[in-house]
Amino acid sequence: MCAVVGIFDSKEAAKVAYYALFAMQHRGQEATGISTSNGSSIKTVKRRGLVTDVFDEEAFKLLQGAMAVGHNRYSTAGSASVLDAQPVTASYQLGEISIVHNGNLVNKNEVRSRLIEEGAIFQSSMDTENIIHLIARSQQERLQDRIVEALEAIKGAYSLLILSRHKMFAIRDRYGVRPLSLGKLPDGGYIVASETCAFDLVGAEFVRDIRPGEMVIFEEGKKAPRSVQLFEPDPRICAFEYIYFARPDSIIEGKNVYQVRQRMGRALAKESASKADLVIPVPDSGVAAALGYAKESGIPFEMAIVRNHYVGRTFIEPTQKMRDLKVKLKLSPMRSVLEGKSVVVIDDSIVRGTTSKQIVRLLKSVGVKEVHLKIAAPPIKHPCRYGIDTPSYEELISANHTEEEVCEYVGADSLSFLSIEALIESIGDKQRYSLVSFDGNYFIQ
Amino acid sequence: MCAVVGIFDSKEAAKVAYYALFAMQHRGQEATGISTSNGSSIKTVKRRGLVTDVFDEEAFKLLQGAMAVGHNRYSTAGSASVLDAQPVTASYQLGEISIVHNGNLVNKNEVRSRLIEEGAIFQSSMDTENIIHLIARSQQERLQDRIVEALEAIKGAYSLLILSRHKMFAIRDRYGVRPLSLGKLPDGGYIVASETCAFDLVGAEFVRDIRPGEMVIFEEGKKAPRSVQLFEPDPRICAFEYIYFARPDSIIEGKNVYQVRQRMGRALAKESASKADLVIPVPDSGVAAALGYAKESGIPFEMAIVRNHYVGRTFIEPTQKMRDLKVKLKLSPMRSVLEGKSVVVIDDSIVRGTTSKQIVRLLKSVGVKEVHLKIAAPPIKHPCRYGIDTPSYEELISANHTEEEVCEYVGADSLSFLSIEALIESIGDKQRYSLVSFDGNYFIQ
Amino acid sequence: MCAVVGIFDSKEAAKVAYYALFAMQHRGQEATGISTSNGSSIKTVKRRGLVTDVFDEEAFKLLQGAMAVGHNRYSTAGSASVLDAQPVTASYQLGEISIVHNGNLVNKNEVRSRLIEEGAIFQSSMDTENIIHLIARSQQERLQDRIVEALEAIKGAYSLLILSRHKMFAIRDRYGVRPLSLGKLPDGGYIVASETCAFDLVGAEFVRDIRPGEMVIFEEGKKAPRSVQLFEPDPRICAFEYIYFARPDSIIEGKNVYQVRQRMGRALAKESASKADLVIPVPDSGVAAALGYAKESGIPFEMAIVRNHYVGRTFIEPTQKMRDLKVKLKLSPMRSVLEGKSVVVIDDSIVRGTTSKQIVRLLKSVGVKEVHLKIAAPPIKHPCRYGIDTPSYEELISANHTEEEVCEYVGADSLSFLSIEALIESIGDKQRYSLVSFDGNYFIQ
Amino acid sequence: MCAVVGIFDSKEAAKVAYYALFAMQHRGQEATGISTSNGSSIKTVKRRGLVTDVFDEEAFKLLQGAMAVGHNRYSTAGSASVLDAQPVTASYQLGEISIVHNGNLVNKNEVRSRLIEEGAIFQSSMDTENIIHLIARSQQERLQDRIVEALEAIKGAYSLLILSRHKMFAIRDRYGVRPLSLGKLPDGGYIVASETCAFDLVGAEFVRDIRPGEMVIFEEGKKAPRSVQLFEPDPRICAFEYIYFARPDSIIEGKNVYQVRQRMGRALAKESASKADLVIPVPDSGVAAALGYAKESGIPFEMAIVRNHYVGRTFIEPTQKMRDLKVKLKLSPMRSVLEGKSVVVIDDSIVRGTTSKQIVRLLKSVGVKEVHLKIAAPPIKHPCRYGIDTPSYEELISANHTEEEVCEYVGADSLSFLSIEALIESIGDKQRYSLVSFDGNYFIQ
Repeated sequence: MCAVVGIFDSKEAAKVAYYALFAMQHRGQEATGISTSNGSSIKTVKRRGLVTDVFDEEAFKLLQGAMAVGHNRYSTAGSASVLDAQPVTASYQLGEISIVHNGNLVNKNEVRSRLIEEGAIFQSSMDTENIIHLIARSQQERLQDRIVEALEAIKGAYSLLILSRHKMFAIRDRYGVRPLSLGKLPDGGYIVASETCAFDLVGAEFVRDIRPGEMVIFEEGKKAPRSVQLFEPDPRICAFEYIYFARPDSIIEGKNVYQVRQRMGRALAKESASKADLVIPVPDSGVAAALGYAKESGIPFEMAIVRNHYVGRTFIEPTQKMRDLKVKLKLSPMRSVLEGKSVVVIDDSIVRGTTSKQIVRLLKSVGVKEVHLKIAAPPIKHPCRYGIDTPSYEELISANHTEEEVCEYVGADSLSFLSIEALIESIGDKQRYSLVSFDGNYFIQ
Repeated sequence: MCAVVGIFDSKEAAKVAYYALFAMQHRGQEATGISTSNGSSIKTVKRRGLVTDVFDEEAFKLLQGAMAVGHNRYSTAGSASVLDAQPVTASYQLGEISIVHNGNLVNKNEVRSRLIEEGAIFQSSMDTENIIHLIARSQQERLQDRIVEALEAIKGAYSLLILSRHKMFAIRDRYGVRPLSLGKLPDGGYIVASETCAFDLVGAEFVRDIRPGEMVIFEEGKKAPRSVQLFEPDPRICAFEYIYFARPDSIIEGKNVYQVRQRMGRALAKESASKADLVIPVPDSGVAAALGYAKESGIPFEMAIVRNHYVGRTFIEPTQKMRDLKVKLKLSPMRSVLEGKSVVVIDDSIVRGTTSKQIVRLLKSVGVKEVHLKIAAPPIKHPCRYGIDTPSYEELISANHTEEEVCEYVGADSLSFLSIEALIESIGDKQRYSLVSFDGNYFIQ
Repeated sequence: MCAVVGIFDSKEAAKVAYYALFAMQHRGQEATGISTSNGSSIKTVKRRGLVTDVFDEEAFKLLQGAMAVGHNRYSTAGSASVLDAQPVTASYQLGEISIVHNGNLVNKNEVRSRLIEEGAIFQSSMDTENIIHLIARSQQERLQDRIVEALEAIKGAYSLLILSRHKMFAIRDRYGVRPLSLGKLPDGGYIVASETCAFDLVGAEFVRDIRPGEMVIFEEGKKAPRSVQLFEPDPRICAFEYIYFARPDSIIEGKNVYQVRQRMGRALAKESASKADLVIPVPDSGVAAALGYAKESGIPFEMAIVRNHYVGRTFIEPTQKMRDLKVKLKLSPMRSVLEGKSVVVIDDSIVRGTTSKQIVRLLKSVGVKEVHLKIAAPPIKHPCRYGIDTPSYEELISANHTEEEVCEYVGADSLSFLSIEALIESIGDKQRYSLVSFDGNYFIQ
Repeated sequence: MCAVVGIFDSKEAAKVAYYALFAMQHRGQEATGISTSNGSSIKTVKRRGLVTDVFDEEAFKLLQGAMAVGHNRYSTAGSASVLDAQPVTASYQLGEISIVHNGNLVNKNEVRSRLIEEGAIFQSSMDTENIIHLIARSQQERLQDRIVEALEAIKGAYSLLILSRHKMFAIRDRYGVRPLSLGKLPDGGYIVASETCAFDLVGAEFVRDIRPGEMVIFEEGKKAPRSVQLFEPDPRICAFEYIYFARPDSIIEGKNVYQVRQRMGRALAKESASKADLVIPVPDSGVAAALGYAKESGIPFEMAIVRNHYVGRTFIEPTQKMRDLKVKLKLSPMRSVLEGKSVVVIDDSIVRGTTSKQIVRLLKSVGVKEVHLKIAAPPIKHPCRYGIDTPSYEELISANHTEEEVCEYVGADSLSFLSIEALIESIGDKQRYSLVSFDGNYFIQ
């Protein structure tokens, strides 16, 4: 899971990128990086850590120029490689190039094998390297044509920003699986970002979304970007962006995430009403849906689980293990509000089921009479292959168990999921969505 | 502003104190420390920084023993002294002693002057040093009697924990201005803490509040603590603990803070109704009151301002100043929800007015039509002298301006505060409270 | 073991103190601190760590004013307390005071007990606190008289710098056990420091040594310091300063340390000649004496052991223990130079004997035929009680074993020490010295 | 300037590499890295910083396996790229490969251009990437044959270690410009390292030097390495390794560096005697040569400049600039020894002349009457292109000025260099050396 940003024609491109990355850093952060071009060369600073830790005054001395691309990688269990930070910057036939990528290529192993067969070397496991290789090996004269040739060779979900010394390209795959939006900076330059919440912080005005299959070209000396429709659009924006990935104040394809989540909550209330005294969210992920559920059902909404935001990375472990310590460090349910109550608990998803199990146990431990766990999304039965990190089939509890079995495992008194239809309707009925995690319809293969 | 914790007769006293301090660390943290006694000597580790940064494995190697006292100091503009961390540990006639203190002594300058006159030296500006000096200079034979003598000499608000090599004393002033509660640990030991949210994390069971004017004595070898009523109780718990200081899941004097805040919101709705499309809280401080307001008024509640919890300490400043950057790094209002709307905005207090002004401007910038700012507390007209850091009269906007002037300054379309009466009723009618910030009735002088 | 510095009437007093402390930081550093007075208040920054780590730009923002005192504490096995950094700063009857102390009080426990009996509290184990207490409890009106009264109550070795808001006092005990020198800064101000190497770095001109029993008073508004001879001088400068503590370029009582060490080496050659192919020093401590030995004996000098100066604090331990790893990380003998040779090895002292044993073993491992270990000082048979950290009688190998036994323990082919007489003559014949470690003549009791 | 290490068939290969890198870290360190193979995959940890800072317990958890290659890069003015740390690890046709390289390729730009022309991308400016690309593009079936093919395409100085999942290759160019030695570990495995000082620390026994033009192959399951002579040897070991790069206890081509330096000092004394009172070295670089000079000339040797080894990376700058602060932080001349004396000062080289100028000024400032600066090497008139970082012609003072002009610039009373003939004789007469910095004879082009 990643977020990307591109800045064009701004006096302090690197700093604007920095603030944009900061705004988009609302998940556990693993690594971040920024590349800038000053017209004659490209410089890159990237490292593991939070945005505020990676970039210091020294970094900004290096990152000069009016164009920048930046990247946030969010943490995923198991992947700890220091070397897999983006942007990936390389020298090649036409000079220097730097790429950031949000998404996932489904044919990356084939492409990689073929490239390796042809003599290429790979210094990381990132599919971004595939794209650079394809561009470097293209026989086209213009970078733009090389990019097109490279894109024709890859399949998958991608929102790409490509920086050369004089240009910046913003590209979205024909399905538009991962979001990418265009904004205008107060000083006249442009910003392209995965999430519009970045625009708000830097004071940019939303212009429009980059279209599925579109390439937008920002060229030194030209104020307005050019647009080329590379592929016929077949929009299937990832439903997961709405469900849990994006920040609630972001707007994806014209729809505010927070409002979409409220509609999911309302739909959940319609589909699976439970008699209960209270509706409570698992904070922060379930807040919007819980509000929607409460409004639709008329059951009072309470913020009855407190989330501790000061949780650091490293904890001294107690010698005698405290039960459920890890979840209790983050979440604290209020006995005064909950004791003796029947409660509808709203969360955004169940992946492995372990956290839900701990939350149910915590709630019962403060005297909750009945826990009706309601998930504002359908059960995750398939791994996403288009850029959201979901575990394999073996680990996905809903891939291997019925709802009843999951309910029993987590210890809830009842368990409901949103239907796929209601999910679609909540986002907006007109469009198609990437729903692979729910329906296993891998439309890019 | 501080929080204290004491642990008695627990195998890992220092680690239990550490987790308790962690739970109570929900405000900007400045410094923290823990002292332990292993029966033959007292060890102390204290430093500036977050609980998770200050205590490492090396610290816990030093902090051995079954008794511990700990302290969190929250940050206050202007006070940056490294040397003012607690506990304060000293050698004196009876051996070693370590003290943590939450509160403020009103006669500290007189006591300090007198002690200095008598030849004492002060190595910090903390009034905790006063108490140690008084204990050290007492002619009484028993520590307990010395403590009583010291307490007779001081006036003010204090919740104290005093650790000697073999005992721990928990004391609350006769007004009980600052909270202090007693709990029982799963392994049979005891915990005393400023906030009951600490009990939940370490798995302790709430026993009771320490009574105003009470001293509870924990003695090596004796399982049950002894209680001595030192002073006649005249309870006046600080209303500010309910209004904004305590964590919402804490219980103070039997009242859950979150529920009290909801009642304040409800009372606010009754006292100062506004016609509006939405009720929104300033997160996280205004959430509970806003929920109460919404329930009472029937106006829909929306979490329309997103709070970014990843804000680090140090930021690279942009060269061209971004307007309202500081507040925007933390708070982001949602245009989609807010545009064209009349909005009731709920916050817990107005101190200097500058933050409220920035929030109102932010809301207007995303198209809010009308901002009705409602504060779930009375106007702060006087500095608290009993342990809550409030600025001086000059800086308190409500001390120097009418509500109309404040409203104009912050740029809201209307501004309302809760009445003192409604505040009292929201907390609970039977008891008296410390309300000095609102009524200037400095009952301890 | 410590070093102190005082700066008077210099535009950047704190920074000059910082550089002076840096110059004197030639031993394993434990803690450091600086206090400054700006005429109205005293500020202190102190912490564990190297001078360059403790003081940052933020520290210098706090440390304003034209007067400063500073302190380095060197690391000693066992003492790890964060709280024992100097300066010790306190408020007392006459205002504020900050003290740094190099030396050791022999009656500190008695004084401390008496003070505690009278109601004083001690927040550290530093005898510096004794002095502040005595000053604070004095009934004299002037600080100067109070200091004198305090000094009359203490016995021991002390080179003190005392900073008040308007004055600085530099004092040396009547024996002048620890060095203290006066210099003139390029900008007209004054510097007082333990080691003259500090003068060289900051560009100060050596004026003279503070005399045993002298107090030098620096007063705001008066350019020239005043001198008061408090006690009749009975000079007995610590021989250890010459033997191993001071930096070789420092000048103590008019004698350059490096040259004194060379004379010790020469004397050693006269007293205990060995037939050998080479003279080699244990670097860096034995270099000067080895040069003297070589010159006197005519045996060629070789730097045949390389010292690695990049040794960090924390090392990853190998699983299979590498033999003598700790000493090998620091010292590497050259087989090419040493193999098959008889070697005179010069070091400055043997304390516990463990390091010498490892060095002898290392030398043998590269083929040295004979190791004649020669120590450019007499055997240490008694703990120093005047400020040099030496272990207790039990741990001092020469306190419990004959030279033959020590020689056998360390594995050398022969072992020689310098005689006390030769030591005295090497430093300079006219004066008496503190030789307690060698002769057990504790002249201050 | 770099150092490399390879470990084969050792239980804790990564830790042995770590200690070896530590031993070779005797110059300002910029970056370091280690790769290990556990037989099925290669893992790499690399970063800027000191060896002890880069590798922690977490790193060693990743770096499993019995084979390792490691690299130190020393700091060079101007090159600060985070991304240029070695080893370079890549996936390619035959699996995974990791390379460390000490040296410099003279045709790297041509090779790089050709490779880029063929579609390769370069993610750094290191010529190590050239070699990986050449290996990856070779059509040979066996890695060994691919390496040979790659080597045939490159020209320059290289001491290479190449790690595949099952083998390790150690290769030295046919001139043997950069050293590379083979040792046997105590546990039976092998070590290959740039400097033999690494062997001493890890307890390895020196076996022999890798021969110019030789490839040594270490193969899983085979105890003894195989040797292949790839190119006809034409030995021209870099004279600079002896002059200043290597640690004095290292042995290069059978000659101990310290002893070679002493012979240079002796030769200098023969070639350019000066009447003087003392011979002093610029520490630590000039110590060995100064000893040789003193022995040959009979003029007394003194360590009259003290070097401060505690110099940190970042210093707080004084507001009023202290003259020569930078050099004074490191070097302190002793007035007591030097005042009024004529002094022969020995250093290893003059590059830009600025440091020498400061040292001469420092010496004069403590009263040295005459400074006879003698350099134990010929004047550097040409940039080295074979792996020692020397500045360009413009910056090399001796490339643009006569000895008289240089003498006048640095302010010495006389200046002498060693002749090239004496240099050669000092190292050993039988062999040819790389002397490009002195004679401009670029024998690899």
